Amino acid sequence: MSKKRLREYGYSVGRLPTGVHNSITDVAQVQVGHTTLNKPSQGILTGVTAILPHDGNPFQEKVAAAVHVINGFGKTTGLIQVEELGVLESPILLTNTFSVPATEGGLRWLMKGNPAIGGRDGTVNVVTAECNDGLLNEIRGLHVRPEHALEAIQGARGDCPVAEGAVGAGTGMVCFGWKGGIGTASRRVSVPGLSGHIGSLVLTNFGDPEDLTILGVPMAGLQAIPTTSTTDGSIIIVLGTDLPLDSRQLKRLAKRATFGLARTGSIAHHGSGDIVIAFSNAHRQPHRPETPLLTSCRIAEDGPLISLCFRAAAEATEEAILNSLFLAETATGRDGRTVPALPRKEVLKRLRKYKELHQ
Amino acid sequence: MSKKRLREYGYSVGRLPTGVHNSITDVAQVQVGHTTLNKPSQGILTGVTAILPHDGNPFQEKVAAAVHVINGFGKTTGLIQVEELGVLESPILLTNTFSVPATEGGLRWLMKGNPAIGGRDGTVNVVTAECNDGLLNEIRGLHVRPEHALEAIQGARGDCPVAEGAVGAGTGMVCFGWKGGIGTASRRVSVPGLSGHIGSLVLTNFGDPEDLTILGVPMAGLQAIPTTSTTDGSIIIVLGTDLPLDSRQLKRLAKRATFGLARTGSIAHHGSGDIVIAFSNAHRQPHRPETPLLTSCRIAEDGPLISLCFRAAAEATEEAILNSLFLAETATGRDGRTVPALPRKEVLKRLRKYKELHQ
Amino acid sequence: MSKKRLREYGYSVGRLPTGVHNSITDVAQVQVGHTTLNKPSQGILTGVTAILPHDGNPFQEKVAAAVHVINGFGKTTGLIQVEELGVLESPILLTNTFSVPATEGGLRWLMKGNPAIGGRDGTVNVVTAECNDGLLNEIRGLHVRPEHALEAIQGARGDCPVAEGAVGAGTGMVCFGWKGGIGTASRRVSVPGLSGHIGSLVLTNFGDPEDLTILGVPMAGLQAIPTTSTTDGSIIIVLGTDLPLDSRQLKRLAKRATFGLARTGSIAHHGSGDIVIAFSNAHRQPHRPETPLLTSCRIAEDGPLISLCFRAAAEATEEAILNSLFLAETATGRDGRTVPALPRKEVLKRLRKYKELHQ
Amino acid sequence: MSKKRLREYGYSVGRLPTGVHNSITDVAQVQVGHTTLNKPSQGILTGVTAILPHDGNPFQEKVAAAVHVINGFGKTTGLIQVEELGVLESPILLTNTFSVPATEGGLRWLMKGNPAIGGRDGTVNVVTAECNDGLLNEIRGLHVRPEHALEAIQGARGDCPVAEGAVGAGTGMVCFGWKGGIGTASRRVSVPGLSGHIGSLVLTNFGDPEDLTILGVPMAGLQAIPTTSTTDGSIIIVLGTDLPLDSRQLKRLAKRATFGLARTGSIAHHGSGDIVIAFSNAHRQPHRPETPLLTSCRIAEDGPLISLCFRAAAEATEEAILNSLFLAETATGRDGRTVPALPRKEVLKRLRKYKELHQ
Repeated sequence: MSKKRLREYGYSVGRLPTGVHNSITDVAQVQVGHTTLNKPSQGILTGVTAILPHDGNPFQEKVAAAVHVINGFGKTTGLIQVEELGVLESPILLTNTFSVPATEGGLRWLMKGNPAIGGRDGTVNVVTAECNDGLLNEIRGLHVRPEHALEAIQGARGDCPVAEGAVGAGTGMVCFGWKGGIGTASRRVSVPGLSGHIGSLVLTNFGDPEDLTILGVPMAGLQAIPTTSTTDGSIIIVLGTDLPLDSRQLKRLAKRATFGLARTGSIAHHGSGDIVIAFSNAHRQPHRPETPLLTSCRIAEDGPLISLCFRAAAEATEEAILNSLFLAETATGRDGRTVPALPRKEVLKRLRKYKELHQ
Repeated sequence: MSKKRLREYGYSVGRLPTGVHNSITDVAQVQVGHTTLNKPSQGILTGVTAILPHDGNPFQEKVAAAVHVINGFGKTTGLIQVEELGVLESPILLTNTFSVPATEGGLRWLMKGNPAIGGRDGTVNVVTAECNDGLLNEIRGLHVRPEHALEAIQGARGDCPVAEGAVGAGTGMVCFGWKGGIGTASRRVSVPGLSGHIGSLVLTNFGDPEDLTILGVPMAGLQAIPTTSTTDGSIIIVLGTDLPLDSRQLKRLAKRATFGLARTGSIAHHGSGDIVIAFSNAHRQPHRPETPLLTSCRIAEDGPLISLCFRAAAEATEEAILNSLFLAETATGRDGRTVPALPRKEVLKRLRKYKELHQ
Repeated sequence: MSKKRLREYGYSVGRLPTGVHNSITDVAQVQVGHTTLNKPSQGILTGVTAILPHDGNPFQEKVAAAVHVINGFGKTTGLIQVEELGVLESPILLTNTFSVPATEGGLRWLMKGNPAIGGRDGTVNVVTAECNDGLLNEIRGLHVRPEHALEAIQGARGDCPVAEGAVGAGTGMVCFGWKGGIGTASRRVSVPGLSGHIGSLVLTNFGDPEDLTILGVPMAGLQAIPTTSTTDGSIIIVLGTDLPLDSRQLKRLAKRATFGLARTGSIAHHGSGDIVIAFSNAHRQPHRPETPLLTSCRIAEDGPLISLCFRAAAEATEEAILNSLFLAETATGRDGRTVPALPRKEVLKRLRKYKELHQ
Repeated sequence: MSKKRLREYGYSVGRLPTGVHNSITDVAQVQVGHTTLNKPSQGILTGVTAILPHDGNPFQEKVAAAVHVINGFGKTTGLIQVEELGVLESPILLTNTFSVPATEGGLRWLMKGNPAIGGRDGTVNVVTAECNDGLLNEIRGLHVRPEHALEAIQGARGDCPVAEGAVGAGTGMVCFGWKGGIGTASRRVSVPGLSGHIGSLVLTNFGDPEDLTILGVPMAGLQAIPTTSTTDGSIIIVLGTDLPLDSRQLKRLAKRATFGLARTGSIAHHGSGDIVIAFSNAHRQPHRPETPLLTSCRIAEDGPLISLCFRAAAEATEEAILNSLFLAETATGRDGRTVPALPRKEVLKRLRKYKELHQ
């Protein structure tokens, strides 16, 4: 059975149309890159995923950003400053929990592209988030090194499909007891005179097998239930948009990712570090503005557009999570442990039965 | 068709067992009272609901509490102090948006029971939350007065079923375009050597008719769709427990109510003031402690119990919302506007079809 | 000894120049009104102070706003929504703790000026804050009624000096053991091509007599130390500006009020509800925008202007607190209790000695 | 002129008594270690400082903790999880901005001492904070490596004086234009039947030369004003106590550090990353509790003790900052830049004159 995304089987999530790629790369200029470390014989199943907010220099041209912590059992860098200043000035790097220091690779990349960092231009804030892939990956080996982060950044591409499943930071992740990893989806929102995209990219490593719900259909009791339950994983959710939302509005948007997450069956277990980072690249804010005032526009919150954006964030996040499950193949890692792929055949059988009811 | 709760039709939400009443009053000593103002000819459909954290004097014996703001488009009192001190020292009063000042009735009740308030005992913090029932209720008339709040408090009862639907603060509320109002549910959680209840009571006034989802089953296109969509309503969620959670843990619990809310189809529209207040009455903290130290216990977060509590909060909140819909009857209010009850017959038909798939 | 402000004695706070009135009313269009209830024989020393963000309709033309809670032992209304939406749409009302419900007067005023509130225009969020004047005022009597709030709003005036000391909400307040109340001050900030004002208005009711510090000079042991120490009072700080700061920037500004407060000797005692509300009226945001996007400007945070604004907020707040002490006269209230005015003669003697050292 | 602390010159800050060492190491079992990298010829003036919450295994025996962000222009790790779970489970590591990844040394130390981390025991949360020493230090060189963090941890000692000034993370820091770095102080608080310590350790790298204020005495215009103003530095403040404060109370305590900071003249400039981390080691919480409930005690907030703790946090932080200035010697680093030591002679002359006024 070849790897297909949920939508290719004829199932859509929610009401809104997707972008062309149904991916965070539908958001103008957003770029994604992966470095995959997949050496099962050495117990190394891990990697780095980089999301670039646009195709320019993120330090010189910052974008509006915000953070929402669903459950703060997670290790991150840079979130405090995003919260204070409302901007993102680096790639967003995703990796495994103990490889956060390896994001020094991101710092090195930013220093190289901006010689005045550490001098006249002050410091730079690198945003990193993680999940624990220690079930399949020899995480104590700290196998991700700075050069792997650098490689993910340099390999990032936009306006194209994004590799999903067991790639990049998702290489060793486990979701609802099945193999998880990277997933993405997007929505196109429009009102007369204005349209744009909301994209979601997720790193999935959470959930109790008995809780998985797809399009409202419970998947409890799926044949060949995995024996390696790791409910205390995590999920990192990155939301991007090319619509002009300011940092306060992006925080509101980020909160709606929870609604998509909830519909897949999550309850945000105690040990699940569930964190949302949202950005808008509609405006680029210079590192050294030449005038004392900056002018920008933002969505008027009394019209219908903001709630459409909220809906898009929920829908795209739900679908991105499901894509991470549909695209990941069975993997064997550390100590010979195997995590099976989602049994798509059985899942699709259940979905079909429910779908017939609607016809 | 008589008013029955969802569970009486044979449908359960989630995995955990309910308490005896499947109500927030399953939480030891919690009491609930309603004052209903229902004068359709005058366009008055409103009221007050009071939740008392225990059967004693809430000012002299405070309980641990926390707040989570899902979407802060709401008017409340007292939340800032709950956040700072981690305690609740008053009844929680629910009413319509413009009647928050009427909660002076709560203040008067507390002053009467505590003569030293305003003198030696300092001030008291009254917690109030609201939804806008202005679709059915002549809200500009400020018909709720302090004596109505007082009456709801004085009439509160525990260890018994709670009236649901169009009663108390729920009298004029609208949910997913159908008549909403008050709903409640509970879950019993236990681990070896320890058990207790989590209860949820909701005031529902939110949602887009096309979004309503019951047990994962979409209800879009229900016969006789209401024409009066009010997506920008609100929901207030009160969680109570007799298990010993401290204020930080209660904040974590409160965040899980979002997961239950999300499963009913909400996306927390821009104008929906969605607020959660959680308390635990396992310990009573005296207003004037006699010693410099207070000793208390709390759930150890590394065991399975905390995630069970999270699950209970999500499940009970989802079911409480559905109960508010199942119990509310068609109502006519201001300007002859009518909001129909949920078409239970059609809803149950859909649910039955889905249920058969599982058998 | 006649009532003079600190600056009239030749002492300035900090480095920045003041506005013309050295008052929050130097901020273009800001208006302030007081209702004073002063009936010592009945033990009634209380009132209401209203701050209007501009001279128009605050509901139809909202302004950017933010909140910072220094110590949340306080009862307020409206702060949750200001935090979520980043706007102020009502007068800010200050009064005594138990008179917060009386701010129904503000609601009535807004409903009168906006007939569609409660109908097509939805609800309105009234912002209220308080201190406990129960030492001098029979606070249990709830003597402030809705009409007093209305009167303070209707009497508000701008571009003029503001009455300080024992007026409006400050009538019965006590600060560092001396008579406190209302104080205000302002600063003018400018960079090439841009200038504006930051104003602070405070309601002072906090502090331990031994902690009072004026311009760095300790006032411990002042002759005739008051015997009625009420360290657990509160302070409400309102910051206004006509410079274009957005809500995130206003939150940063609000945090700097703490720096001014700290220099007067406060440590924010446990029972002191210390809350800052900041707004900018540089832009007026319509209740019903006609376009899906709103355009506005804000201060570029990498230039020197933002730190000048921070300095202005700290300086104006420190001076406003001192003005509240210098302008308040000895007052006798409830149960014959007397709170003396600051012994200005002795204070000035100390200040003079220190000043000579600088010359 | 030999290096002496402020108090050795006869000046005390505030009212409360100090601990024996007037240092964070007065807090029972707290340990501090420094690694100093001081190679002026190579432009390397930097280092690491480690604060250990007790003398055991911080992962196996966690302590209550909280965070307060005064101004979030800073890069840190671990704070999100401290906020969620209310515990600290690692040493607190301070270093320069770009060396945060080097705190991998802390991770390696924790993995070594806890073989089940990364396996059965899940992950570990390493707390790191930083200031930018780039004025004196070739920060782009990333000279701090993981082994330096390890060395600081392994060299940590308790119940003894702590090296202050240009040591450890403070080696290259600049404060109010003078050489700054590490400073510490403590206070002893007691009520009948209960006593303990509050200690503060600061890493100072902030402030405008014209703002420096010592004991209320302005130091503007000090002879030989430094020409290298770096107002946009940062300060990290670590508060420790052996009194039983829970995480909510520690957050309240952390907020009071701002009051001490303010009295030194700071206004928290835009670019100053000002962050407070507070912990209490009165209780040690096991990583794997054996029972479903944990029992602990905490300060009763209605007695006088909590406000004494607040006062202690403000006083100790103010004095710690001043100690960092008094103890740091003139330093020359990168590009031959020299930052002079505080001109103690001139400062003391001013202080003496003011002191005489009190006698």
